[in-house]
Amino acid sequence: MVVYSELNPPPRLLLGPGPSNVAPRVLKAMSMPTIGHLDPAFLQLMSDVQTLLRHTFRTDNWLTLPISGTGSAGMEAAIANFVEPGDPVLVCINGYFGERLAEMANRYGAKVYRLEKPWGEIFTPEEVDAALREHPAKIVAIVHAETSTGVLQPLEGISEVVHKHGALILVDAVTSLGGVPLFVDDWDLDIVYSGTQKALSCPPGLAPITVSERAEEVLSRRKTKVISWYLDLTMVRKYWGVERTYHHTAPINMIYGLREALRIVQEEGLERRWHRHRRNATFLWTGLESLGFQLVVPREYRLPTLTTVYVPEGVNGAFVQRRLLEDYNIEIGGGLGAFRGKVWRIGLMGESSRREHVVLLLAALKEILRL
Amino acid sequence: MVVYSELNPPPRLLLGPGPSNVAPRVLKAMSMPTIGHLDPAFLQLMSDVQTLLRHTFRTDNWLTLPISGTGSAGMEAAIANFVEPGDPVLVCINGYFGERLAEMANRYGAKVYRLEKPWGEIFTPEEVDAALREHPAKIVAIVHAETSTGVLQPLEGISEVVHKHGALILVDAVTSLGGVPLFVDDWDLDIVYSGTQKALSCPPGLAPITVSERAEEVLSRRKTKVISWYLDLTMVRKYWGVERTYHHTAPINMIYGLREALRIVQEEGLERRWHRHRRNATFLWTGLESLGFQLVVPREYRLPTLTTVYVPEGVNGAFVQRRLLEDYNIEIGGGLGAFRGKVWRIGLMGESSRREHVVLLLAALKEILRL
Repeated sequence: MVVYSELNPPPRLLLGPGPSNVAPRVLKAMSMPTIGHLDPAFLQLMSDVQTLLRHTFRTDNWLTLPISGTGSAGMEAAIANFVEPGDPVLVCINGYFGERLAEMANRYGAKVYRLEKPWGEIFTPEEVDAALREHPAKIVAIVHAETSTGVLQPLEGISEVVHKHGALILVDAVTSLGGVPLFVDDWDLDIVYSGTQKALSCPPGLAPITVSERAEEVLSRRKTKVISWYLDLTMVRKYWGVERTYHHTAPINMIYGLREALRIVQEEGLERRWHRHRRNATFLWTGLESLGFQLVVPREYRLPTLTTVYVPEGVNGAFVQRRLLEDYNIEIGGGLGAFRGKVWRIGLMGESSRREHVVLLLAALKEILRL
Repeated sequence: MVVYSELNPPPRLLLGPGPSNVAPRVLKAMSMPTIGHLDPAFLQLMSDVQTLLRHTFRTDNWLTLPISGTGSAGMEAAIANFVEPGDPVLVCINGYFGERLAEMANRYGAKVYRLEKPWGEIFTPEEVDAALREHPAKIVAIVHAETSTGVLQPLEGISEVVHKHGALILVDAVTSLGGVPLFVDDWDLDIVYSGTQKALSCPPGLAPITVSERAEEVLSRRKTKVISWYLDLTMVRKYWGVERTYHHTAPINMIYGLREALRIVQEEGLERRWHRHRRNATFLWTGLESLGFQLVVPREYRLPTLTTVYVPEGVNGAFVQRRLLEDYNIEIGGGLGAFRGKVWRIGLMGESSRREHVVLLLAALKEILRL
């Protein structure tokens, strides 16, 4: 029988598309003794997490809670609960995660209409309006922060158009929540999900979701059961609500971690946090450009939490990533899908968004590429 | 803005239906710094976990991995991946979790045949044989350790009958894995899932699953896509396999914890662990009976990890649970479904299965009930 050594993960600086580095306070919270999922002391922690999540989402939505899975489980919960077989859904696709939304909607039986733009571009309200005129939809799904391209999608105008057409707006905020301005109530967004391992700097394992009253009514009026039992919000909300009805065992220690991560967000202040992310991203952008790198996304809709940069002509992108990891303990990401081999993805999220990390990364790139 | 205090969970002794107490080593492992889900160092940990899970499941099944959700996500993965719409599925129901299996199979479009026995009883191979003669099925779903009733279901004879009929046997081992004998290969079980928060004594958040070659072929021959994208093993297995294709971000720190929990299982030795669970359960049973309590399940198929005991006539079960929690920091469970208000559920799983815990619980019950 093989003997397995004590766990000893390398000291990585996580500057990829996620996970980001986790604050010691969050790791410490996760190592507190497990208690029961129906313990009154745990129910109080659940309420804390809901209040803190509402604060972070900038919403008063009652139905705000963490789904017991990683970001993709949040995406699936959003689709599974609001799509019924045959429902028309317009999916805005300008990257890998828009594509994933379409794939999930298809699996849950939606009639999917694809509104496509090239990777790295954004959608305008006029484009969404035109698409909805052609194909009325029950739901419009769109990605706020495309982790595959580094694009920050403006949402206010689109939300208005979607509601003018009587549809719901479903938003992927995996790489935006806690890192860039997101106003669920002011922008009138209906279904918004995220992940914990990006700008919230909690380990992966939970997917915060928030649902507007309008969308909750749609949920209550479903004619068919939600196919996914595990993600069924009509039941999950009774565990998180006053009934406290047992559904599935909550991932207790992950909830501990999320509570602590959200406390840190609150202590820093959301606006200050957004500002920090933008300041460090700007510093990175300037540094990369001064080293001769070309950024993929135009400045006006460039995402502060995740930067895409072209791999220079004649350079092996994967080789550079390996050198960064092995010689400097720095993780950055490669391109996905259409961008495979063509770009690097540099994340500055949560705890990872620090000036000294940018300085180190730029210096390391300079050494490796002899710039 | 409300200020949230530092996390400070009460020091509970977890003797309910799960979660069980977690070893300090596991909590410590979970607090190690997060690394990336595609980091070579993490890929090695994944392989470790797979090997250790195979050891614990007593199987050589290649497709053995932890689903990124709690036990119910494991159940849903088992159903979602092997049921296609219209498939006939025989579900053996003698408790709450058999009922849940039927509910999930229904949602995924199965034609569900219910084989029912009263809560607290077991199924015989003859009963399953007769049911399959009447209703041939693609899958027979059965619970090995019914957490709602405390019944340990013998599986060998049933597995033989199921295969004689050309069906697959799908087994819920949430409350048995690591606590009572379970031989996936020797008993020829096809799809077996569990949770981490019971006899493995890792916090809730992962659901180990193992799939036989026979079942994996069925998976590969599916005519329809798995409806749940998040739980789709045809994709998940490529992330855990040689391809290492990104699917969803794994819950890194939960995997750290599971690896440590499985190392502890290996160090203790599975047989010794099974023996410890039986020894402490027997001690509990004798103690309860000598105090005049009546146990629900006959000795020959009583589950060592979870004991159901009748709430005595004239006693308020919930009141006793509250006293145990508030005055002794001991959690035990109440009854679910048909057993609501009628029974207590006492778990002795993993770290919680210790002689001193039984001594304390019996003494506390004696004080509260003035026995």
